[in-house]
Amino acid sequence: MPEIRQDPISGRWVIIAGNRAGRPEEFRRAPVSRVEISCPFCRGHEDQSPPSLAWYGPDRGSPERWEVRVVPNKYPALTGPAPGESHSPWHGESRHSVNDRDSAIEAALFKTLPGLGRHEVVIESPAHVASFSELSDDQAFWTFCAYRDRLLAHRGDPCAVSPMVFKNFGPEAGASLVHAHSQILFLPQGPQTLVEEIDGAERFRQRHGECVFCAMTAREAELGVRMVARNERFVAFCPFASQFAYETWILPRGHNSRFEEATDAELQDAALLLRQVIRRLETVLDQPAYNYFLHTTPFDRQANDHYHWHIEIFPRVSKAAGFEWSTGWRLNAVPPERAAEFLSRVY
Amino acid sequence: MPEIRQDPISGRWVIIAGNRAGRPEEFRRAPVSRVEISCPFCRGHEDQSPPSLAWYGPDRGSPERWEVRVVPNKYPALTGPAPGESHSPWHGESRHSVNDRDSAIEAALFKTLPGLGRHEVVIESPAHVASFSELSDDQAFWTFCAYRDRLLAHRGDPCAVSPMVFKNFGPEAGASLVHAHSQILFLPQGPQTLVEEIDGAERFRQRHGECVFCAMTAREAELGVRMVARNERFVAFCPFASQFAYETWILPRGHNSRFEEATDAELQDAALLLRQVIRRLETVLDQPAYNYFLHTTPFDRQANDHYHWHIEIFPRVSKAAGFEWSTGWRLNAVPPERAAEFLSRVY
Repeated sequence: MPEIRQDPISGRWVIIAGNRAGRPEEFRRAPVSRVEISCPFCRGHEDQSPPSLAWYGPDRGSPERWEVRVVPNKYPALTGPAPGESHSPWHGESRHSVNDRDSAIEAALFKTLPGLGRHEVVIESPAHVASFSELSDDQAFWTFCAYRDRLLAHRGDPCAVSPMVFKNFGPEAGASLVHAHSQILFLPQGPQTLVEEIDGAERFRQRHGECVFCAMTAREAELGVRMVARNERFVAFCPFASQFAYETWILPRGHNSRFEEATDAELQDAALLLRQVIRRLETVLDQPAYNYFLHTTPFDRQANDHYHWHIEIFPRVSKAAGFEWSTGWRLNAVPPERAAEFLSRVY
Repeated sequence: MPEIRQDPISGRWVIIAGNRAGRPEEFRRAPVSRVEISCPFCRGHEDQSPPSLAWYGPDRGSPERWEVRVVPNKYPALTGPAPGESHSPWHGESRHSVNDRDSAIEAALFKTLPGLGRHEVVIESPAHVASFSELSDDQAFWTFCAYRDRLLAHRGDPCAVSPMVFKNFGPEAGASLVHAHSQILFLPQGPQTLVEEIDGAERFRQRHGECVFCAMTAREAELGVRMVARNERFVAFCPFASQFAYETWILPRGHNSRFEEATDAELQDAALLLRQVIRRLETVLDQPAYNYFLHTTPFDRQANDHYHWHIEIFPRVSKAAGFEWSTGWRLNAVPPERAAEFLSRVY
């Protein structure tokens, strides 16, 4: 099982997944093969991945005609407990006993937790397409249905308190397989970045009496200078303090803090607007690598009136270098107004 | 002048350096030229960079025989104020007037500050070498002297409250020029990552009555399992909660919170141990790209007994993907004990 370690200074969590890599040779630069001999995600190769946790297609009686399917990750970053192991790792303390000053320091310096969680993969098409932009209307919609249904399936699971849905597309974005897929990682607690975001939104609400996402969405739609696209229930814009060049957010117009409570109509609108935004990015930036993330309220927090679930899309066109890693600041060479100008014009 | 924007939700700062990039074509993948026609950092090409701010060499009377020199960055992320502009941007508020509820929300959503700061480049050799590992003893030492002297030169400058010294080596680490160089960026306030680190160290001191860096250094030297190398005044080890594969820290054995107060003997030991660690990484990982960072107390904070200045080295052998960006968690496939085993064995 992977081990979760905490940095004693910053409090940052690290998953040490020692099972995933061996000798240093594995990190050496290898000639990249463009041809995959046999793709485990293509229809007909279902025996190369674990059995489906869920599947979607035109005919509920014909599982072999799946269009979108969900499988456990074969190389999970986090896993469920072994038989007999505790299900609630986060209520315990570190494994070190704390009897005196020295052992208290020892415990603080070397804090670990078992790497409990869930890690699933959503295969977004039976054909060997790569980008989310290539999906059919149905496949895009079913992919979003899969996200919602897997979140609902794990609600109440103590190893799966905070769901993170994300996509890595292209090697620069960390993808290791070409076939269109995304990942759902369920963490045993809300990660720092998300918790800070939700807490920041709560502070904004307390100070200004309004949800920051609603305020932002309304102002951006009104101003227009950072707008990329919109449909009935969603808007897409480049945020004012974009961290990365051409960063784009997709936000629901109506207030909803929990993604898993979205209606079919909302999922449809979100999926199609996401596909459209990615197509725009691919036209303007010539098929860039990209990540997208779905941010939603962890299961152990109340639904609330200050936080929106939303999607953040990052084309990976510039590299985070020493400055970004060391400071937590970002350096973005493309003002979002300029990015939006290019993105809104095409298509 | 660049603009600094603040995300209204997370509070994260972003430098929008719109002068550094133009049309989206600039982000398209270009064939990488391995040959640089003329390197602006080589001796004899001094006219291709701004005049030296400082230089080091065997003969103080012969500036043309420099071995290490410091110049202003030609493409600065942050700059000093224009004539007549305020020197103290961080004492003011945002440029929006706050008269009523709507304009208060407006000000909170679109908070900006002028991009004031300093950005300098340290050229570490007159010859066209690339990695820090290739420097002579003198060049490594003088590079560290340059770091210290530039920090001392800016102490008291309101645009330069928090110095960040960092190196990007190799394109995967964000370097755009091959010739051995590092950067010193002076920020107008301590960046979040550093402030969190210093605050975390202060909490540790309050709780345990000991400096966390001293405690960690002593325990690691005693345990040995994560030790990479040591000399008289410094130790190098892979930290217990390493964020990245083969991450290595260099820490002074004696307590000192401010890098700019280091003695010549300390600078010498630090520089030579850094060079040795990089040589070990290059042997084990076959010439990886890497970043290193110097963390030190910002000028507006007191010297203290809970924080050590130190160096963090990150070989860029794995890519941060969707999971890392979205959660702030790290996923490290190489346990630091295993990394240290390989790194300590070579050389």
